[in-house]
Amino acid sequence: MIINVLIMKYRLIFILSATLITGGLCTGQSDKPEIREDFIPSTLNQPGQEYPQVNSQGYARFRIVAPEAQSVVVSLGPGGTRGGTPLTKADDGSWTGTTAGPLEEGFHYYHLTVDGGVFNDPGTLNFYGSVRWESGIEIPAHDQDFYALKDVPHGRVQQILFPSASTTTSRKAFVYTPPDYDREKKKRYPVLYLQHGWGEDETAWTNQGRANLIMDNLIATGGAKPFIIVMTYGMTNEVKRGGLRNFDVTPFQTVLVNELIPYIDANFRTVADQPYRAMAGLSMGGMETKTITLARPDVFSHYALLSGGIYAPEDIKDKSKVRLIFLSCGSFENPGGITSAAAALKEAGINAVSYVSENTRHEFQTWRRSLYELAPLLFVK
Amino acid sequence: MIINVLIMKYRLIFILSATLITGGLCTGQSDKPEIREDFIPSTLNQPGQEYPQVNSQGYARFRIVAPEAQSVVVSLGPGGTRGGTPLTKADDGSWTGTTAGPLEEGFHYYHLTVDGGVFNDPGTLNFYGSVRWESGIEIPAHDQDFYALKDVPHGRVQQILFPSASTTTSRKAFVYTPPDYDREKKKRYPVLYLQHGWGEDETAWTNQGRANLIMDNLIATGGAKPFIIVMTYGMTNEVKRGGLRNFDVTPFQTVLVNELIPYIDANFRTVADQPYRAMAGLSMGGMETKTITLARPDVFSHYALLSGGIYAPEDIKDKSKVRLIFLSCGSFENPGGITSAAAALKEAGINAVSYVSENTRHEFQTWRRSLYELAPLLFVK
Repeated sequence: MIINVLIMKYRLIFILSATLITGGLCTGQSDKPEIREDFIPSTLNQPGQEYPQVNSQGYARFRIVAPEAQSVVVSLGPGGTRGGTPLTKADDGSWTGTTAGPLEEGFHYYHLTVDGGVFNDPGTLNFYGSVRWESGIEIPAHDQDFYALKDVPHGRVQQILFPSASTTTSRKAFVYTPPDYDREKKKRYPVLYLQHGWGEDETAWTNQGRANLIMDNLIATGGAKPFIIVMTYGMTNEVKRGGLRNFDVTPFQTVLVNELIPYIDANFRTVADQPYRAMAGLSMGGMETKTITLARPDVFSHYALLSGGIYAPEDIKDKSKVRLIFLSCGSFENPGGITSAAAALKEAGINAVSYVSENTRHEFQTWRRSLYELAPLLFVK
Repeated sequence: MIINVLIMKYRLIFILSATLITGGLCTGQSDKPEIREDFIPSTLNQPGQEYPQVNSQGYARFRIVAPEAQSVVVSLGPGGTRGGTPLTKADDGSWTGTTAGPLEEGFHYYHLTVDGGVFNDPGTLNFYGSVRWESGIEIPAHDQDFYALKDVPHGRVQQILFPSASTTTSRKAFVYTPPDYDREKKKRYPVLYLQHGWGEDETAWTNQGRANLIMDNLIATGGAKPFIIVMTYGMTNEVKRGGLRNFDVTPFQTVLVNELIPYIDANFRTVADQPYRAMAGLSMGGMETKTITLARPDVFSHYALLSGGIYAPEDIKDKSKVRLIFLSCGSFENPGGITSAAAALKEAGINAVSYVSENTRHEFQTWRRSLYELAPLLFVK
C-alpha cells in the first residue's frame, strides 16, 4: 500500500517533471496560467541592474541591449537549462523575452548566445561553473529563509593560501569559521571538508551555495553545532564532461589529506582527530568524497554524497569507524536510489540518512537544502 | 639645473605618452617596431582559456568566437582605454585583433562591444570596476615580482559581515591579516583602512590590486611591519561619473567610524588607538580619505591619497596628530601637483612623502606600486 502510494507519487513527479521540461509545447494557450506582472530584479543582479527579472510564479524575464545583433538566445528555460529562451528585438534595439514556463526554485547558471557567440548577461553576477564564469539567476523559493542574510551573528569566510609540495605551488582554499570562533579563544572545532562539482571551484559553496549563511542561520537557532568548513578546488576541471571514469583522484587526495588537512590543523583551532572530521561533496565532489573516505577511513568519520552517488554496505570495511553516511539528491534526479541505499546501509548497522529535495534537480537548491539537512547531523555523537 | 632636468624628463614622458595615445596613427609603417610573436595567455584568463594573449612588448591580442556577428570591438587600446581595438573576422567564425601599440604595464579593465551590445570577454576573469564586472587583462611589468604569488608565508583574506545599524543591514568587508597573526596569539596589530575608487567595491584591492600578495612579499623580506588591512565598500557607486562634487561622504563616514572600526577592534587583535590607525584610498577613495581623516583626526594618524588629490598645509588643524601624509599618482597623471603638495606639507613641518609611478596612469599598476611604497612607511614611528 505504502509502496503503491510512493510509486503513484513518483509517477506524478515524473509527469510533473516531463511537463516542466516540455513547457508550453504540449499545453494549449488556454491551459497556460496567466503570467503575473510582478517581476522584480533577480537578487543576483549586478548593482543597479534591472534585468534579469523574476516573478512570483518563477518565470524569468531577460533584457539585453545589442542593437545590431541578429539573434540573442538565453540558455535558460523551464526544466533546468534544457530549453533555451530566444529573445525578441524591440524598436529601441533591446532584446527581451520571458521563459516559456516557471523555472525551478533556487539558483541557476546560464549564458547568452549572441550571434553564435557565448557571452554572459551583463546584468548579473558571475558564478564559476561548467569550467567558466557563468551568469546566475535566483528564483525565489518557498524556503529561502534558511539561506537568507539575516541579522544573526555571522561567521567568517577566509581565503587561505596553503603550501602544496605535490603540485609545487600555493593553493587557495576558503575556510568558514563559525561566529563564536573569535570569541571562544580556547575552543576547538570539528571540520567539514566540502567539495564542489565538476566545472566548479572553491568559490561555489559560498557564492552559489550560500554555505556560510546556511551555517550562520542554523547556529543562531541552535540547529547545528558550530564547526569549521574548508572548501578547496577538487582539481576536477581537467576532466571533460562524461569522462569521469578516467579521472584519477590520487593527486587531489594527496593535496587534501597530506597537505591541506595538516595545514588546517596547524593554523586553525580544530579537533585534529578522525571522529571530528567530515567530508562531503556534490556531484563529482561526491565521487571524490566516496573514493577518498573509503581509501582513508582513518581520516574521516562522517561521509556525505550530495547528488554524488551512494555507498553500498560492502564498501565499508570497518563499520566502527563510520559515524554517519548521508545521501541526498533532488526529487527530479534518482531519489529511489538514494533512499534504498540508505535503507541498505541502515540494515547493515551503519548510521545512514537519506534526504530528497522536493521539486529540484541537479542544481544548487538541492545542495543548499542538503547542507541544511546534513549540518545538524554532524559531530553530534 | 635639477629643475631643468626634471622639466626635460616630464617633457619626454609627455611626448612618450602622446605617442602611446596616438599609437600607430602618426607613425609610418616602417617606424613601427616589429611585433614579436611571443604571445602567451594573460595571467588573468579563466582556466584553460588561450585568449586574450600578451607579448613581451606589451601588445595584447584578442580572439572572440561570434560567427554571425557584424562587428566586434575591444575597448582596450594603447594609451589606457582611450583607443579601442576592432577585431577582424576569420573564415572559422572567430574575430581576432592585436592592439595598435603596446599597452602600459599592469592591470587594465576592458569589455567588448558585439553588434552594439556591451559584453565581457568570455576568456578572462571579471573584476568589479565602472559599476560592473568587467574583463581584465594583465600586461607583464618589469617590476611584477613585488606582487607575484611567491613561496613565502601568506596572510589571510577574510570576508566578514558586520552589523550596520545606520544602513539597517549586515555589510561586507575583507580583512587581510598578516602571516604571523595566527601564530602570535598575543600580538596586537595596527590597522590600515584601504578604500577602492569610484565604480569599484571591496573586492578591488585584493583582486585587481593584489594587496595581500604585496604585503606577504614585503613582510617576508622585513620591508614592512605586519599590519591588518580592512577593505569595505565606500558607497561611491551611487555617484555618476563626474558628479563627485555632490557626493555626501557622511553616510560612509558613519559606517566606517561608528560601525566598522568598533567591530574590527572588538573582533581582531588590533591596537585600538589613533596612532595605530591609517586610512588610504585610491581616486574617489582618496577623496573619502581626505574628508574623513580631516573630519576625524582623533581616529586616524596616517593618511594616504593614491591618485586621489592632495592635502594643503592649512587643511591640517593639529599637526601633532598627523604621523604621515603620503601622496602618489602615475607619471601620466599630475605628478607635479603631488610632489609640490608634499613639499609644501614638509615645509609646514608635516611628515609628508610623495611617490610618482613611472609610465603609468590612473590605473591599478600605479596603486599597486603606491601600496608597495606606502606600506614600509606605516606605523614605524
